[in-house]
Amino acid sequence: MRPIDALMSSLPDGRVVTDPDVIDSYARDRTFVEPGKPLAAVLAASRDDVVAALRWASEHRVPVVPRGAGTGLAGGATAGDGALVLSLARMDAIRELSPADEIAVVEPGVITADLDRAARRHGLMYAPDPSSYEISTIGGNLATNAGGLRCVKYGVTRDSALGLEVVLADGRVLNTGRRTMKGVTGYDLTGLFVGSEGTLGVITAATVRLRPVPAAAPATFAAEFGSLRDAGAAVSAIMAAGCQPSLMELLDRATLEAIDDWRNIGLEPGTKAMLIGQSDASDCQAAVARMEGLCLDNGATFVAVASTPAESEELIGLRRLAYQAKERLGACLVEDVCVPRSALPDMIGAIEAAAARHGVRICTVAHAGDGNLHPVFVFEHGTSEPPAEVWAAADEVFARALELGGTLTGEHGVGVLKRRWLDLEAGPVTREVQHGIKAVFDPLNILNPGKAI
Amino acid sequence: MRPIDALMSSLPDGRVVTDPDVIDSYARDRTFVEPGKPLAAVLAASRDDVVAALRWASEHRVPVVPRGAGTGLAGGATAGDGALVLSLARMDAIRELSPADEIAVVEPGVITADLDRAARRHGLMYAPDPSSYEISTIGGNLATNAGGLRCVKYGVTRDSALGLEVVLADGRVLNTGRRTMKGVTGYDLTGLFVGSEGTLGVITAATVRLRPVPAAAPATFAAEFGSLRDAGAAVSAIMAAGCQPSLMELLDRATLEAIDDWRNIGLEPGTKAMLIGQSDASDCQAAVARMEGLCLDNGATFVAVASTPAESEELIGLRRLAYQAKERLGACLVEDVCVPRSALPDMIGAIEAAAARHGVRICTVAHAGDGNLHPVFVFEHGTSEPPAEVWAAADEVFARALELGGTLTGEHGVGVLKRRWLDLEAGPVTREVQHGIKAVFDPLNILNPGKAI
Ligand SMILES: Cc1cc2nc3c(=O)[nH]c(=O)nc-3n(C[C@H](O)[C@H](O)[C@H](O)COP(=O)(O)OP(=O)(O)OC[C@H]3O[C@@H](n4cnc5c(N)ncnc54)[C@H](O)[C@@H]3O)c2cc1C
Ligand SMILES: Cc1cc2nc3c(=O)[nH]c(=O)nc-3n(C[C@H](O)[C@H](O)[C@H](O)COP(=O)(O)OP(=O)(O)OC[C@H]3O[C@@H](n4cnc5c(N)ncnc54)[C@H](O)[C@@H]3O)c2cc1C
Repeated sequence: MRPIDALMSSLPDGRVVTDPDVIDSYARDRTFVEPGKPLAAVLAASRDDVVAALRWASEHRVPVVPRGAGTGLAGGATAGDGALVLSLARMDAIRELSPADEIAVVEPGVITADLDRAARRHGLMYAPDPSSYEISTIGGNLATNAGGLRCVKYGVTRDSALGLEVVLADGRVLNTGRRTMKGVTGYDLTGLFVGSEGTLGVITAATVRLRPVPAAAPATFAAEFGSLRDAGAAVSAIMAAGCQPSLMELLDRATLEAIDDWRNIGLEPGTKAMLIGQSDASDCQAAVARMEGLCLDNGATFVAVASTPAESEELIGLRRLAYQAKERLGACLVEDVCVPRSALPDMIGAIEAAAARHGVRICTVAHAGDGNLHPVFVFEHGTSEPPAEVWAAADEVFARALELGGTLTGEHGVGVLKRRWLDLEAGPVTREVQHGIKAVFDPLNILNPGKAI
Repeated sequence: MRPIDALMSSLPDGRVVTDPDVIDSYARDRTFVEPGKPLAAVLAASRDDVVAALRWASEHRVPVVPRGAGTGLAGGATAGDGALVLSLARMDAIRELSPADEIAVVEPGVITADLDRAARRHGLMYAPDPSSYEISTIGGNLATNAGGLRCVKYGVTRDSALGLEVVLADGRVLNTGRRTMKGVTGYDLTGLFVGSEGTLGVITAATVRLRPVPAAAPATFAAEFGSLRDAGAAVSAIMAAGCQPSLMELLDRATLEAIDDWRNIGLEPGTKAMLIGQSDASDCQAAVARMEGLCLDNGATFVAVASTPAESEELIGLRRLAYQAKERLGACLVEDVCVPRSALPDMIGAIEAAAARHGVRICTVAHAGDGNLHPVFVFEHGTSEPPAEVWAAADEVFARALELGGTLTGEHGVGVLKRRWLDLEAGPVTREVQHGIKAVFDPLNILNPGKAI
């Protein structure tokens, strides 16, 4: 009997997939990173399935790659030779939604936007909304500590995570956190698992915080600028003035062109950047008027203010098209640097300089209110590894981000793609401590080995 | 040469105190827990002092008790026989305050309210405001993950902590986190240290988030109720309606009487509870009017709305008197249960029942918007240990909090006082994992041993 047969016989029929073509589709995320040949994929339908898979993997020392929807941009869910893929996508029940306590208890495979929609039926919302929220899972969001458009006001996934059920590498079940808004009993294990990219345990349920939907319909504006630096300066001015936008996104000329090519948005030749902002405060019209004024003060050439919810949606829709528009141009290395807010114009300048110096096409979008930029390095489709000049330009971008007091990754995670730069940010003591923690939870190093740390 | 002489000679003059009377004043917090006889106290003035003290303590296997201002309510800073007290109170510099990035870099001994005042000179605020904020330190707040009045809107200390400098037990220096609003490089070590009560490392600097001061002066109300349960129901209604108060505090009759005895506030005989609420939104008058309406709907007998900032301050001042008023009555066991919001009325009922059944005087104040209650068990001054009926009543309160889906401690920490109930909340897997983490950072178990976990 092969080891895999033992796993198959311990799980209900259909849970273990061994057809190589099917497995391959579970072995990739949205990066260009080529997977190896995993042994099998488990399509878990319950916590018990996860326990069985991990016990088996521990016994046979098989590396396990947890996965949600595979929309990751860091190679975190890429599976190598001989690994077991553990998909949580089928565990997609919303187990509880308590309007009185403003919490939900969900399984990891719930699609992010589905939870938000379910909450809205009770006048609540699930705030964290990565651009991928129609296709990513809550489990993946938790494992990467995903950000999103609204997080400039409502915080990242961690800020909505109250408690977790986690299956450890050896199959033990750990419950972290609580159902309450506050709590300090013991170490913050919930926070430790959030952002750990599947290397410490497999999340099988989560208690998350919901928030009341703002009473008024939000107000939205889009401002055009003749230079990217002006747009960056406008963002700094808006945040410093305490306008508290609920969304503050920046698109550069290259991104706007990619969208224009695809959807013809009537892009003006002089437009070098666009800022899309929103307020959902009860006096949102006034807030948007203030932000409009600050854009004009900082050189905006044109500002459109949406006058209906449909127009609002249209402006934000532009932003949500950005990634797909770029994928039409070529293969993409999506980066994710985050800098202190005031450094945004400098960081933008550095990205433009790196693009020019290395002759690389870089399209940048940014969750600008948080100082989080996504320079997307475009290269030829079909090449599995970016060419040398792309890496060289990326090296420069990272080095500058760190010089400015920033970080390698604001929300996508380290995965495999950012490990080459990890030592630039984290010193030896950090490294030792992180590996020490990893060993507490996963002494055999079977959980997503080679990722994140 | 005694071991302590080696420490004294490695530190500048005056840093090491060995006078037993002086040491004793550094060996207590604000609980009735009696300290032992510590060996010495180090009054650290720099990170290097902390490094020297911890290296020495590691070498000689001496337990170290870090301390800020000693205002803790869990016995966390109580020092036992032969321990070294490590006071961070002298490290009180605000090293940087960046209005553009909305962050500050501070030493651990900075008094919480001092940082808030410094931020306000730039139109910013430091949000976490424990009632003790005029006397507690940022380091102590971080080590306990302190809550406060404003945290119903702005979150607890963890939500304002971006990065830390920590000296580990062996003297190594670890830098965690970052200066940016977001970041997911590696595990969340910042979150792990926040709330770890001095058991994982000594915090020697912190990068914290500041926020814009709301533009409008806040609006405040105080509502009186004929029953505590009515007040609890009003809180649930206000939170569920999405009023987003910036403060929502509840005082029971026993607390109001203690304040009235002391300051004569003209307490009405029928008043069984008071709710003090505030909104700092731009439409705060309207928000307060809505909250007033919800109080009246839920049985409030009288609602006062402050019409000037001075009146606002006066209402909130009432709340800030609560703890001192109770200390006049006797020794206090201050508890800190936190329950899901909707369980607030039930929890209040359970506290009243426990007081009646065991004939114990319990005065309760609550950060009610978060479901966080402080039942204060009053017993005779001069007794170092609460009498059996106090423990029995406390047992009942804790058991009920956990049944309601709550937690032992919302913000004060476990310290030594709550360890007797720890196993009720945390199962064996949690315990093993927490001790595993402790061993990574402090393999010799010299940092605040016997506390928190
Ligand atoms: C068009 C597009 C837009 C995007 N926009 C954003 C954005 O705005 N903000 C943002 O943060 N990200 C964004 N992303 C990246 C991605 O969607 C997020 O990282 C998301 O959180 C991944 O979720 P997933 O379910 O696809 O996880 P996967 O890609 O399947 O996995 C991601 C990581 O999480 C681990 N993992 C997954 N599930 C679990 C589990 N249950 N337990 C333990 N570990 C687990 C995996 O091992 C892997 O390391 C975008 C991606 C795309 C394609
Ligand atoms: C009147 C009154 C009202 C209060 N109200 C509140 C409230 O509203 N909310 C609330 O949360 N608490 C409240 N408290 C409790 C207390 O003020 C908080 O726990 C506060 O955070 C403690 O700060 P401190 O500087 O006094 O710390 P200490 O009491 O000195 O220490 C507390 C814990 O932190 C550790 N510690 C201290 N400094 C460091 C450091 N630099 N590095 C590592 N570990 C360290 C200690 O070892 C100990 O375990 C109140 C207390 C009083 C007396």
